[in-house]
Amino acid sequence: MPLVVQPQSMHFQAPLALASGAHLADYQLAYETYGQLNADKSNAVLICHALNASHHVAGVYADQPDSAGWWDNMVGPGKPVDTDRFFVIGINNLGSCFGSTGPMHRNPASGEVYGADFPVLTVEDWVASQARLLDALGVGVLAAVMGGSLGGMQALSWALQFPQRARHVVAIASAPNLSAENIAFNEVARRAIVTDPDFHGGHFYRFGTVPRRGLRIARMIGHITYLSDDVMNAKFGRELRHAVESAGKSGYRYTTQDIEFQIESYLRHQGDKFSQYFDANTYLLITRALDYFDPARAFGSDLTAAFARAQAKFLLVSFSTDWRFPPARSREIVTALLENRRHVSYAEIDAPHGHDAFLLDDPCYLAAVRTYFNGIAGEAGA
Amino acid sequence: MPLVVQPQSMHFQAPLALASGAHLADYQLAYETYGQLNADKSNAVLICHALNASHHVAGVYADQPDSAGWWDNMVGPGKPVDTDRFFVIGINNLGSCFGSTGPMHRNPASGEVYGADFPVLTVEDWVASQARLLDALGVGVLAAVMGGSLGGMQALSWALQFPQRARHVVAIASAPNLSAENIAFNEVARRAIVTDPDFHGGHFYRFGTVPRRGLRIARMIGHITYLSDDVMNAKFGRELRHAVESAGKSGYRYTTQDIEFQIESYLRHQGDKFSQYFDANTYLLITRALDYFDPARAFGSDLTAAFARAQAKFLLVSFSTDWRFPPARSREIVTALLENRRHVSYAEIDAPHGHDAFLLDDPCYLAAVRTYFNGIAGEAGA
Repeated sequence: MPLVVQPQSMHFQAPLALASGAHLADYQLAYETYGQLNADKSNAVLICHALNASHHVAGVYADQPDSAGWWDNMVGPGKPVDTDRFFVIGINNLGSCFGSTGPMHRNPASGEVYGADFPVLTVEDWVASQARLLDALGVGVLAAVMGGSLGGMQALSWALQFPQRARHVVAIASAPNLSAENIAFNEVARRAIVTDPDFHGGHFYRFGTVPRRGLRIARMIGHITYLSDDVMNAKFGRELRHAVESAGKSGYRYTTQDIEFQIESYLRHQGDKFSQYFDANTYLLITRALDYFDPARAFGSDLTAAFARAQAKFLLVSFSTDWRFPPARSREIVTALLENRRHVSYAEIDAPHGHDAFLLDDPCYLAAVRTYFNGIAGEAGA
Repeated sequence: MPLVVQPQSMHFQAPLALASGAHLADYQLAYETYGQLNADKSNAVLICHALNASHHVAGVYADQPDSAGWWDNMVGPGKPVDTDRFFVIGINNLGSCFGSTGPMHRNPASGEVYGADFPVLTVEDWVASQARLLDALGVGVLAAVMGGSLGGMQALSWALQFPQRARHVVAIASAPNLSAENIAFNEVARRAIVTDPDFHGGHFYRFGTVPRRGLRIARMIGHITYLSDDVMNAKFGRELRHAVESAGKSGYRYTTQDIEFQIESYLRHQGDKFSQYFDANTYLLITRALDYFDPARAFGSDLTAAFARAQAKFLLVSFSTDWRFPPARSREIVTALLENRRHVSYAEIDAPHGHDAFLLDDPCYLAAVRTYFNGIAGEAGA
């Protein structure tokens, strides 16, 4: 019996002050909740999403059996984050393109679609907006805040912005900031979008165009960095598409523009799919929020100093073949927390799937999260 | 006193049969030579180039002091490949854009510029065309054939296509074939070029356009894969451009389309430079030749079987932080050679620079090559 869910939306009229100095005067957040808030409101868990996910974390929509949430293997009845025990909240981040206010919406001040004029956001801005939604839901203190990748950065930022409002922070496949290489990949993806003639400086909505070429390239680059070299070799290797393989002796067709290798076919498919549903300005905003995240920056790059104000208990998880946010990056956070004598658990999972592993069904990984949340449930009386 | 050199060109009228089944009826090769061929013609060394290099391996052109060849630290008087002892030959590969016949040239059959109709080439085709140039120069047997990256693949292919014509094969930062991830990066770069509206299906010359947007993206992606994460962090880290740094407290400007980080500035500069001199069709051809190279393919992916016909002695060199062609890929070749009881030396250099290390001044690396070539010189009486 699948969990049937429905999205909700909340409107905020008090202006939100952003890190950039700008304000967002008026906005709405799309969100979903699963499970029930208990009487003493001690069992709420906030799930933060990464680049292309949304508030639809778990369950399916009525009459849409293929609409499972992006972390449905992690969150739900009897799942590691058990919605029979926890009240789980998923929120679509501001600036995203799945229901919360973003570049595709109308700027109430001008009456025009925001496009490239949507204010630049940071991880800290998202956390501030999430806190307001929790206020409205009557959730004062979270049993836990949890996320993977960019979602993990938001979870970490909760511990720094609202030290008293999250008892546990679970940051999976995350990092204390982006490396130069991480920024470099983001920048190439952004250039592909921005230099697409259909982008029109970010005001493509007015022109009735979509910079699909750029979005495709951006997604292809992203996909490469989500997968490990090993899993790509195991899944695709140097396999040719069947139509090519049967063509001749060597199998090659000798063409520079057509698909010959399976990996090419896979990447083009991912790029095409993504370019049909994702907003180009959102892509720029979210990758920039990734670039900017750097809680140690204000402390002379001293991560230990940055985490001095954290009060939560932490679970960090990393994956051996994740070369986007390798285990060494999680260990930096673990070290900073230990140097502050914080309570921290750390699981380094030996998994072949690269960064994507945080979304997959690795038994060790899911067991580690389940065990940790069992402990939280005990504390929370959930 | 710098080595002053000048490029030469040789015209070939006998058709060249290509792996694809096509023929190149008529073509020329640009080349340079350094040093003197000795009386018994035993001291010739062929240098093969990688993606964006050329026949201009060493020395400078008269009155152009900044025109040093791409491997000038390796090849020249008193250098590891010592042109006082060896007769060194550099050849611009067919299909390239630095003087040899390529997509920018006119197809004698149609009178039109080739563009996308230029025949698709393989590493084996390049080696065959190089062999013809050596024939014309009176070089029967090479003392050595040497290259890095894709150049290393050509050197390896010499051992397989002309087992009696190269006494030594020096393959640096190379691989027995591309991994799925390698192909994936090539494919993204190609898609960026092919989907640039200025590409016109590869016939952009007729339209007076150049797909610079695509070339920029392709080069930016390439650059990321040439550098190690470590060296990027050491060189750029999360540094902001000076103009940004001085702007405010956090230093961020909060923009999605402008340059803020040094790494962004560096990559854009590399992309811009490249897009001004490199031909888009050449980029497609050369990356496809990389994709196709796989000498084990005809042997059921058994690299040992593929190298059974090799007769040369080998030097393989790899670099610890090269994640494009990691040491493990060179070790596959070493293993295949040892299983055939071939004479093979292997140096795994602990260098921070990633794939680019093969072009740089690492003392251990240069010493290893120098020592190896001293041995060759002894054999060759050079």
